[in-house]
Amino acid sequence: MYDGIVQELIDEFGRLPGIGPKSAQRIAFHILQTPTFDVARLSELLSDIRTRVRFCEVCGNVAEQERCAICRDPRRNQALICVVEDAKDVAAIERTREFRGLYHVLGGAISPIAGIGPDDLRIAQLMSRLADGTVQEVILATNPNLEGEATASYLSRYLTTMQITVSRLASGLPVGGDLEYADEVTLGRAFEGRRVL
Amino acid sequence: MYDGIVQELIDEFGRLPGIGPKSAQRIAFHILQTPTFDVARLSELLSDIRTRVRFCEVCGNVAEQERCAICRDPRRNQALICVVEDAKDVAAIERTREFRGLYHVLGGAISPIAGIGPDDLRIAQLMSRLADGTVQEVILATNPNLEGEATASYLSRYLTTMQITVSRLASGLPVGGDLEYADEVTLGRAFEGRRVL
Repeated sequence: MYDGIVQELIDEFGRLPGIGPKSAQRIAFHILQTPTFDVARLSELLSDIRTRVRFCEVCGNVAEQERCAICRDPRRNQALICVVEDAKDVAAIERTREFRGLYHVLGGAISPIAGIGPDDLRIAQLMSRLADGTVQEVILATNPNLEGEATASYLSRYLTTMQITVSRLASGLPVGGDLEYADEVTLGRAFEGRRVL
Repeated sequence: MYDGIVQELIDEFGRLPGIGPKSAQRIAFHILQTPTFDVARLSELLSDIRTRVRFCEVCGNVAEQERCAICRDPRRNQALICVVEDAKDVAAIERTREFRGLYHVLGGAISPIAGIGPDDLRIAQLMSRLADGTVQEVILATNPNLEGEATASYLSRYLTTMQITVSRLASGLPVGGDLEYADEVTLGRAFEGRRVL
């Protein structure tokens, strides 16, 4: 509908999640017509993002070095690991300021429908982190939905053979929802009320 | 909350219209974790957009040359000019396929509250297009809201001194809304039913 590059930019924005054709058009024109919007900055960030961001070799969180900022921090409780599905969940939990241990990002949850089994998740890496006996508790903070519960119960059965306390985030989180979208208070309460499995 | 560049990218997306912090985070992670998303393409488009896109020196529509594709097209009816507030409105009208004349983009509407007067709009440029007598009808297609109606009645009074038919898009457009968001059928009907002022 528009001359060349404007339509291309609209199409490209329309490929991003949650952005429909109208929003994409609105964004493209905002960029074109707002002199204060730093388009060069966004362009530069996008061109750097994939090369500069890697995933922490210990926990799988996003990082700009071999290890993420949390794994590098000696003040974090090394005896406590919180297992989450996604790096976005790490950020959500950090916002509660309730948890001072370490994380382990699985990279998803067990889902027979989506064809994701235990071997597709970072479970072997979790096991090797538990091998030296430093870790005393593993908190299972997978999403409170079908896949997250299945993953938690799989891990719980797997971990009972070891001398480690395994806990699950308390109810308080709305069932069927996504951990990533929980508010800070609810997520904080869920941490306080976690139960031993 | 995230290490350096990831948070910077989230913040930058959050500055775009209609994108809140959660959406910005979702977009940034989509870009990071979806290998099929062509991040280099989006980065390149953003870096080029402001230099490659200009506004048509005749009608004010977006263009990649001195004149836009519509002004360059000899098959368009040169006797008919449709006056709109914004380049996005040109695209909306083109989608109806009801109109085969030319456009004139005002660059806004008269709004005493926002401090926009007739001199801030491309009205002088419209008058000079009408000077040679080629144009026989001017269709006022400003938005059917307070500012758009004020602009239309201002232009209508201004144009009555000339030997030109002045018309306004018919009702059919929901009052109080934005022309840009009208569906094709409604907008097409509004063209058919336009009334002479």
